Amino acid sequence: MRAARLRVGLIGLGRLGRLYARDLASRIGETRLVAVCDPLDEVVSEVADEFEVGGRHTRAEDLIKDPGVEAVVIVTPTRTHRDLAVLCARAGKPAFCEKPAALTLADALAMKEAVDRTGAFLQMGFMRRFDSGYAAARARLSAGGIGKAVLFKSSSRDPQPPPLAYADPRSSGGLILDLGIHDFDLARFFMGEVGTVSAIGGALAFPELATVGDIDNAVVTLTFRDGRLGVVDLSRHAVYGYDVFTEILGDAGALRVGALRETPLSWLTKNTVSHDTTPGFLDRFAAAYTAQLADFARNVLLGRPAPVSIDDGIEALRIALAARQSLSTGRPVDVASLAP
Amino acid sequence: MRAARLRVGLIGLGRLGRLYARDLASRIGETRLVAVCDPLDEVVSEVADEFEVGGRHTRAEDLIKDPGVEAVVIVTPTRTHRDLAVLCARAGKPAFCEKPAALTLADALAMKEAVDRTGAFLQMGFMRRFDSGYAAARARLSAGGIGKAVLFKSSSRDPQPPPLAYADPRSSGGLILDLGIHDFDLARFFMGEVGTVSAIGGALAFPELATVGDIDNAVVTLTFRDGRLGVVDLSRHAVYGYDVFTEILGDAGALRVGALRETPLSWLTKNTVSHDTTPGFLDRFAAAYTAQLADFARNVLLGRPAPVSIDDGIEALRIALAARQSLSTGRPVDVASLAP
Amino acid sequence: MRAARLRVGLIGLGRLGRLYARDLASRIGETRLVAVCDPLDEVVSEVADEFEVGGRHTRAEDLIKDPGVEAVVIVTPTRTHRDLAVLCARAGKPAFCEKPAALTLADALAMKEAVDRTGAFLQMGFMRRFDSGYAAARARLSAGGIGKAVLFKSSSRDPQPPPLAYADPRSSGGLILDLGIHDFDLARFFMGEVGTVSAIGGALAFPELATVGDIDNAVVTLTFRDGRLGVVDLSRHAVYGYDVFTEILGDAGALRVGALRETPLSWLTKNTVSHDTTPGFLDRFAAAYTAQLADFARNVLLGRPAPVSIDDGIEALRIALAARQSLSTGRPVDVASLAP
Amino acid sequence: MRAARLRVGLIGLGRLGRLYARDLASRIGETRLVAVCDPLDEVVSEVADEFEVGGRHTRAEDLIKDPGVEAVVIVTPTRTHRDLAVLCARAGKPAFCEKPAALTLADALAMKEAVDRTGAFLQMGFMRRFDSGYAAARARLSAGGIGKAVLFKSSSRDPQPPPLAYADPRSSGGLILDLGIHDFDLARFFMGEVGTVSAIGGALAFPELATVGDIDNAVVTLTFRDGRLGVVDLSRHAVYGYDVFTEILGDAGALRVGALRETPLSWLTKNTVSHDTTPGFLDRFAAAYTAQLADFARNVLLGRPAPVSIDDGIEALRIALAARQSLSTGRPVDVASLAP
Repeated sequence: MRAARLRVGLIGLGRLGRLYARDLASRIGETRLVAVCDPLDEVVSEVADEFEVGGRHTRAEDLIKDPGVEAVVIVTPTRTHRDLAVLCARAGKPAFCEKPAALTLADALAMKEAVDRTGAFLQMGFMRRFDSGYAAARARLSAGGIGKAVLFKSSSRDPQPPPLAYADPRSSGGLILDLGIHDFDLARFFMGEVGTVSAIGGALAFPELATVGDIDNAVVTLTFRDGRLGVVDLSRHAVYGYDVFTEILGDAGALRVGALRETPLSWLTKNTVSHDTTPGFLDRFAAAYTAQLADFARNVLLGRPAPVSIDDGIEALRIALAARQSLSTGRPVDVASLAP
Repeated sequence: MRAARLRVGLIGLGRLGRLYARDLASRIGETRLVAVCDPLDEVVSEVADEFEVGGRHTRAEDLIKDPGVEAVVIVTPTRTHRDLAVLCARAGKPAFCEKPAALTLADALAMKEAVDRTGAFLQMGFMRRFDSGYAAARARLSAGGIGKAVLFKSSSRDPQPPPLAYADPRSSGGLILDLGIHDFDLARFFMGEVGTVSAIGGALAFPELATVGDIDNAVVTLTFRDGRLGVVDLSRHAVYGYDVFTEILGDAGALRVGALRETPLSWLTKNTVSHDTTPGFLDRFAAAYTAQLADFARNVLLGRPAPVSIDDGIEALRIALAARQSLSTGRPVDVASLAP
Repeated sequence: MRAARLRVGLIGLGRLGRLYARDLASRIGETRLVAVCDPLDEVVSEVADEFEVGGRHTRAEDLIKDPGVEAVVIVTPTRTHRDLAVLCARAGKPAFCEKPAALTLADALAMKEAVDRTGAFLQMGFMRRFDSGYAAARARLSAGGIGKAVLFKSSSRDPQPPPLAYADPRSSGGLILDLGIHDFDLARFFMGEVGTVSAIGGALAFPELATVGDIDNAVVTLTFRDGRLGVVDLSRHAVYGYDVFTEILGDAGALRVGALRETPLSWLTKNTVSHDTTPGFLDRFAAAYTAQLADFARNVLLGRPAPVSIDDGIEALRIALAARQSLSTGRPVDVASLAP
Repeated sequence: MRAARLRVGLIGLGRLGRLYARDLASRIGETRLVAVCDPLDEVVSEVADEFEVGGRHTRAEDLIKDPGVEAVVIVTPTRTHRDLAVLCARAGKPAFCEKPAALTLADALAMKEAVDRTGAFLQMGFMRRFDSGYAAARARLSAGGIGKAVLFKSSSRDPQPPPLAYADPRSSGGLILDLGIHDFDLARFFMGEVGTVSAIGGALAFPELATVGDIDNAVVTLTFRDGRLGVVDLSRHAVYGYDVFTEILGDAGALRVGALRETPLSWLTKNTVSHDTTPGFLDRFAAAYTAQLADFARNVLLGRPAPVSIDDGIEALRIALAARQSLSTGRPVDVASLAP
């Protein structure tokens, strides 16, 4: 007889939220989806019907208080993460919170404060760590497969820009925070803490992004505290397909993680060989998202600490905010200078 | 509100059967797994517990008669397919039957006879047709992307041989039938009917296979009825990984379907770049298996005819049997000569 | 001070002959091109002028007798190989002869007889053996890198058919002999002697080839004398590019040699990644042709035996002729049955 | 009858100089190598013997004055470029000068001054522009294949560091100038003029490089004058092989130039597929070096202007010097601020 499943409540039913609903309801053996919440009534009904979920809420507080809910998954707009995480901590409900932790260090630190005070379980979402490629890369790195890692190089590119309302740095954090935070987390995952950052960027393909204060391309260099090097480039116009590529160059080899095809088909025509590409992040990282939520459930069920903590959320955010500051000042920024 | 799900009973809980159990229970929106059957009590309990299935049977007849079961999925040893399919037809239960249809033409034709007489729904399992790569290849072929298809070339290789008991042609049909039938089905899927076949082969890496009448390598050439050409090679010792590769060469281009890596990681060491491979058929075709069962459910729910019929099962079997005959006689064999 | 260069005379100034002229005149340190011969006066003048060659002939006998010529390279139509090789042997001039040795076994055996009688040096041209990829593959095979080689698989495809006059089997030997002989030589190079062959084929894309008795596609299976397996497919309509691919599957791994791109450029457009292909055999094997002639010169200068002998030429031809016979009879053919 | 060949004198017989000797002597139809020069007598003799060169010099002035020499190829240590180029200009001898133009802007500008004053022909060596991949990339860019180029990204990695004596920035210019100048030239080739640069770097794998003031890794970001972006990473420890990769990301696609294999062989072993890599820059760019010298000869023979001018040499140098300055100051540097 298998162990009891974790009864999970899900807050936020956008595109990613619905993927999470399916994962929690049917793809993850360790979970049962018992409640969903979204401000929109009809969305709640639709998702709850599809996955036969009993708990239906339009106010997050109600879901968190719901006694049938043992643990909470938060996949709402970033600006709401702080309050929801704090509510969960106070209610003693283990929580999973999608990246980024917050839009400001103050908010993220408030989350940490609540976790520290209550001893609550809070796991941050950085799904790439759960991708088979990144996981295998880290295992090889740890096993000494490339000697000492010297250079971290990572690129994240969306096929198109987000809607202007989302691009607004007050909503998503903008390109560097919204997209780049994945690469900054990987930088820490593979290399350790970052000392200084320096950024260049611009709204070069979609000038309208400038009207909300966002950009569509950026290059951010990283100097790790021990002097090792990193560079991240970000773009919103990889029309050829969603493209995430990471390399760690060591003094005895290199590791590369990158998948730029969707199906195993190639077509060969006059003088040309072609293949397709990955349409978007949900296609590229679907299995990683599932693995991440399954890991969350197992951690809660087994009383293990969160492998990706609010501290991880804070430090990745700190790098992103430092990069944004560098972009606006035109000067390198000491990441630690971002107090507190 | 979504349509009611198809209540499915599953017969056979081996390795593939368990994958099907998970698919039917949780990954396919159109199905509910309501009964499972296996000769082994403890296997029935284990799977039924894991997926919370009420109907538990050790006799297939009982599952088929179970009034709660609307449709049946058969994934048992090949020699039992005939009786189970006939029982389903008589019981008026739509059925899905894993490949190959049978080990003999007589058995397969008995299945057809039952289907024809009762008007029952019977869908044959050839999961490659539901793989994104093969589906995309066929779409490009139909759209004229490579002009007229002239040569069909396909290779299927397992990383290791099956146990001797399974390899025995009386159990699995042997290499040519067990593994090759996928390629023979693809030959028909992409090109049409086969006229003659010619085979060579041997137990070259695992001589012990010869003790049960099986081989570990074969090359089978196909001449389609209209004169076009095909070739299939089969092996049981691709130690580098599970390897399925298919090419269609046309007079204006070519299509290639082949995926020989599992994760998106590459590792670069002294003078060498390397990547991993697909471990086995369940890794390579997991999504195709799921898509195939979902398609079966939709066909039943919507009253659509089976896209892969018992006729497809019979014709692929006929090619395989002709190839085995060619292997033993050393001469080309007219596929149509295999009566009836 | 370097050793004296070998003074070479070149007979045949077609497309490949002109490549050889450049190699012998300027790219190979061990040779000096001292005479050229072609039936066409103006071609002789053009090439001789370009490479500053003194000896200018329109009759091959004259070049062979030319006392300034130490060694002869024969790259004329196949039907003339016999007489030219015999003349060289009688004149005591070491010779290199482009593949295939001849169109008939009788002619090839006459060449062998002349060589055996006179003790002359005769090296046959199979440039693939001198390609870096094939050479590296053989080294890995010999070093045990894939265990025991079990299956040989090779494919040669031209981007377009030859002119009808060349396609005529009486001129070039037709698809199986003209193109396939390279793969049959590789079969022997990697695996050893072939026992039986079986072929299918047709003029499927270019029906006009049938008017001269040629085909545009063939699949030939090989059973080596020790029971191991092989398969070769040949085509004249790889419109996507010149495509030669060879695989050796062993019981502990596999080797693959294939290069299907010309420049290191990829272009990424809407949902697609593409690269170019190799235009033709002169592009794919230019370095191998040069290496082969350099090897010939070194062998002559150092008194070493020919690494690719008339026996190699005869045996590859025997396989090709057996395959043609199988194609016309529809039955497997014992290669040794082709007397003498 | 072909046109007369350009009679070329070659100064500098190091590793690259010897490659040039072979090219000029035998691989390029438009040239004849008539004189060579090196400080070492025995090197001069060796090369002159090998390629049958009459003019043998140990003083560059003598070669330049040699009336049999029509044009001069300079492939000496960088610090000597200025004087040699000026001598050629004064002597009215067209010259080709290997990159970088000089170690200081003052020297490079002195070369320009001499050229401007005398009207002499001076072509700078940036062989990547003559590589088939880069040339094809530029053609596609010009044809609008990726829309507007937005991001330039380039990476150059040597398999091992140079000897300390060479690494010394006073000798080679150090990593950023010696290796990076190729990428800076490509940046201008594909995108146009650079406004500001910012660099990070360190001696991370080979700390001994720090003793001569050099580094083994650097990341340099570029902001083009029109606001577009670029990034270059450089390394001296790509133990896996010589690795040059360049990408141009446009708003309608991307171009990638990178070749990381030497032979067309793949080997497949337990769970792994591997291939080899390019050993060094002479392997990767041999054809480009030849094409570049042939282009030089044609330009001189036909009276065409140099397609890569001293201005190109100066501007690439300016970027490299600005990057070095940024590395030492830790601040972005305005490239134009480097006077004059």
